[in-house]
Amino acid sequence: MFMEGKRPLYERFARELEAQIQAGTFPEGSRLPALRESSESRGISLSTVIQAYRLLETKGLIEARPQSGYYVKRRQRRRVLEAAAEPEPLRETPSSVSIDELSRDLFRDTHDPDVAQFGAAAPDPELLPTARLNRILAELAREGRFALDTSVYPEGCEELRVQIAQRAFSAGCPLRPDKILVTAGCTEAMALALQALCRPGDLVAIESPSYFGVLLLLEALGLRALEIPANPGTGLSLEALEFALENHPVKAVLAVPNFSNPLGSLMPDESKRRLVGLLAERGIPLIENDIYGELYFGDKRPSVARSFDPEGSVLLCSSFSKDISPGYRIGWVAAGRRFEELFKLKMAISSGTSVLPQLTIARYLESGGYDLHLRKIRRAYARKVAEMSRAIEEGFPEGTLVSEPEGGYLLWVRLPSGLDSMELYREALASRIAIAPGYLFSPSHKHKDFIRLNAGIWSERSAKDLARLGRLVEKLARGS
Amino acid sequence: MFMEGKRPLYERFARELEAQIQAGTFPEGSRLPALRESSESRGISLSTVIQAYRLLETKGLIEARPQSGYYVKRRQRRRVLEAAAEPEPLRETPSSVSIDELSRDLFRDTHDPDVAQFGAAAPDPELLPTARLNRILAELAREGRFALDTSVYPEGCEELRVQIAQRAFSAGCPLRPDKILVTAGCTEAMALALQALCRPGDLVAIESPSYFGVLLLLEALGLRALEIPANPGTGLSLEALEFALENHPVKAVLAVPNFSNPLGSLMPDESKRRLVGLLAERGIPLIENDIYGELYFGDKRPSVARSFDPEGSVLLCSSFSKDISPGYRIGWVAAGRRFEELFKLKMAISSGTSVLPQLTIARYLESGGYDLHLRKIRRAYARKVAEMSRAIEEGFPEGTLVSEPEGGYLLWVRLPSGLDSMELYREALASRIAIAPGYLFSPSHKHKDFIRLNAGIWSERSAKDLARLGRLVEKLARGS
Repeated sequence: MFMEGKRPLYERFARELEAQIQAGTFPEGSRLPALRESSESRGISLSTVIQAYRLLETKGLIEARPQSGYYVKRRQRRRVLEAAAEPEPLRETPSSVSIDELSRDLFRDTHDPDVAQFGAAAPDPELLPTARLNRILAELAREGRFALDTSVYPEGCEELRVQIAQRAFSAGCPLRPDKILVTAGCTEAMALALQALCRPGDLVAIESPSYFGVLLLLEALGLRALEIPANPGTGLSLEALEFALENHPVKAVLAVPNFSNPLGSLMPDESKRRLVGLLAERGIPLIENDIYGELYFGDKRPSVARSFDPEGSVLLCSSFSKDISPGYRIGWVAAGRRFEELFKLKMAISSGTSVLPQLTIARYLESGGYDLHLRKIRRAYARKVAEMSRAIEEGFPEGTLVSEPEGGYLLWVRLPSGLDSMELYREALASRIAIAPGYLFSPSHKHKDFIRLNAGIWSERSAKDLARLGRLVEKLARGS
Repeated sequence: MFMEGKRPLYERFARELEAQIQAGTFPEGSRLPALRESSESRGISLSTVIQAYRLLETKGLIEARPQSGYYVKRRQRRRVLEAAAEPEPLRETPSSVSIDELSRDLFRDTHDPDVAQFGAAAPDPELLPTARLNRILAELAREGRFALDTSVYPEGCEELRVQIAQRAFSAGCPLRPDKILVTAGCTEAMALALQALCRPGDLVAIESPSYFGVLLLLEALGLRALEIPANPGTGLSLEALEFALENHPVKAVLAVPNFSNPLGSLMPDESKRRLVGLLAERGIPLIENDIYGELYFGDKRPSVARSFDPEGSVLLCSSFSKDISPGYRIGWVAAGRRFEELFKLKMAISSGTSVLPQLTIARYLESGGYDLHLRKIRRAYARKVAEMSRAIEEGFPEGTLVSEPEGGYLLWVRLPSGLDSMELYREALASRIAIAPGYLFSPSHKHKDFIRLNAGIWSERSAKDLARLGRLVEKLARGS
């Protein structure tokens, strides 16, 4: 639709097209709509369209290719080459600390191949069963398995829910497939649980430090966080939690008993049992995030708190984002007695989860290679964590402390001499190294002298980057 | 984890296994975990596991297959055959009318092949490009195109956003790819828009009648609906809307200018322009749902209200659920000036949308078959709507009135003599015909004497079911 104006129509159409080229609607090298198509769809004469295209051609923005049509011209790359010769600072970093902005930066940095990726908690791409998944996808596509997807199931595909229940049974935590809800990753699982259990303004007890995704989620839902201290060994302090429950109107507890992010802590079975018990006494539901539970370094899969809860009042959340594919966005929640409420929410808010990744993961789990894959990546992450810990001990100045996780692939590092992690974050980013500053893991910015490092991507190349990071820490520590 | 108890351990393990078989974790014919696997994973002795499995074998629940393991026995199918010989009523229908329950029933009915599907608004599976999508999926899988999905993009894949912007440009509504957010269907697009614009308790103006998915969504988000009358010809009454805005603190307007569900109404361009203008004057945002916009029966794609809004304060929502695949769950919102707020919400609540269906649809759109496909299905739906309308005129009693949509595939039918649509709904369901009673389309249960019928699935077989429905209406009309 054109606004009325004095310029000739072809000029206005050319301007609009130019704006769309700048906006990326028609990227470099892409074909513009055919002349006749533009004329018909926009209801303007063919000669007007031709005039407009010619104007853009004269301006050097598009070019005609015989028998083919008009294409957006590729621009010269000189600027990029110059930039590569002398790297500029990546961008202005925020002066005040916003969890929101910082976590967006972390997301963005993961897309930059020139930045060392110690920041985000992404798994090692080499340790995902990508080739196998692609074969399954091709197989399912050939079988026409995706032909009947005209009905949407808010609860998710039965094939997948059955597989999840079978694995949970083997892990000592019987779940009913008809009480499992498939979600867009563990994030949506927690979001639905929180929305079902809480109203805006309610108080939710979380570990401190806690994954910043949880903090963003609470903020987005208008919930308030009550930070309960946790330690790198056994996680959430039950004494502190009990005290908090006596003194605050806590509506729900959200915890990561197995290999929490960022601590990597592992709550002992006895503590899980006590946790479930003390919440059951008070009628407060537990949202249990077990996203790292399969990535244990020991002999045996750690149990989930849910397995100590015969009443089904623990809402167990997990996903396949760490061991199968983050981009598939498939998670789940075993919602127990709350299933109906979560089902209704899911139906209302997104209708259901895409069937493609669900059926692909279900077939992968059925096919039996998953256990072998898990054994392989557990060993690999255990080795990476050990090697990176050693490298930190060797390359970082005296006074640096490192967590000793028994699972997952994250390291929680205390900087020496009370160094400020935001300062290190900025310096490191200027040197093209991404880290997660401690600020991110607490709404009240506790843990200022900590950083979280992703050991999952540890490799020979990253050893050099880590050594550079160690020297930056040393420089800052001397300066402070 | 076993609870303490007096029964021997093998009996308790057998019970737990039996419960899981009943729950569907181990469906009929599926293999139970191997003896050694159960022993190791559960930390119980091999002989205990053997005793438990033998107990279940004795009870006739599982069977051993040599060299293979234990399997859940298939049960006799006699009951099912009997049931098929003499159909029982499907289930108890609710006595009070709950939009929640009714819409769940509609969802469930779509999975029942024995029920005539006039209820839900699912597209005709024959009119989806399933074979083509499967070929593309296999192609992408072979290319290893899904290899790099370790980073999650909350805004969605660029390939897809560019395609959406190119199509919008051709339809006369320029959009920037970097202001488009990919979502889990149009439902999540509207959910994010509402969450960004409103707080719980806020008032949202909607059309009456309005798609019940919108009513469920408002309820789930704690928002209140203000019903603005709409008519089957030109949709939303602007006079009524203007009056409502003068007298109520409306926070947002959610409307379907093109082929609304259930009315099939089409708002004239001039009304769209006025709608945008009168909301802009008052600073009230419009959430525009254009999910049926491509399914026009006329010569030209109807414009979207957004194209009359140079300020970008209309949040345009749509999806590929009606013309490509409902099960893919891919929709989008062009959020204009509100993009940042929606991006943050999406990042917090689900991190992002699955890449598999996004890349598949992007490739499909790039490949150029989409326009041809759309031309084909527009003609098919136009024919189905015309034929089914004629069949209603012929087979339903005097006094029945039918809408005349110019797009989409839904018919809005007024029953004769003030017949109650819930009564018809129950009678029809007992005869294995699903319809959507008018109650569903208004939070205050207006439109009691209307039903919505899905003409999208019209075929020779459904002609007979429709004739049966007509006779039911006649019977009820005589009785009333």
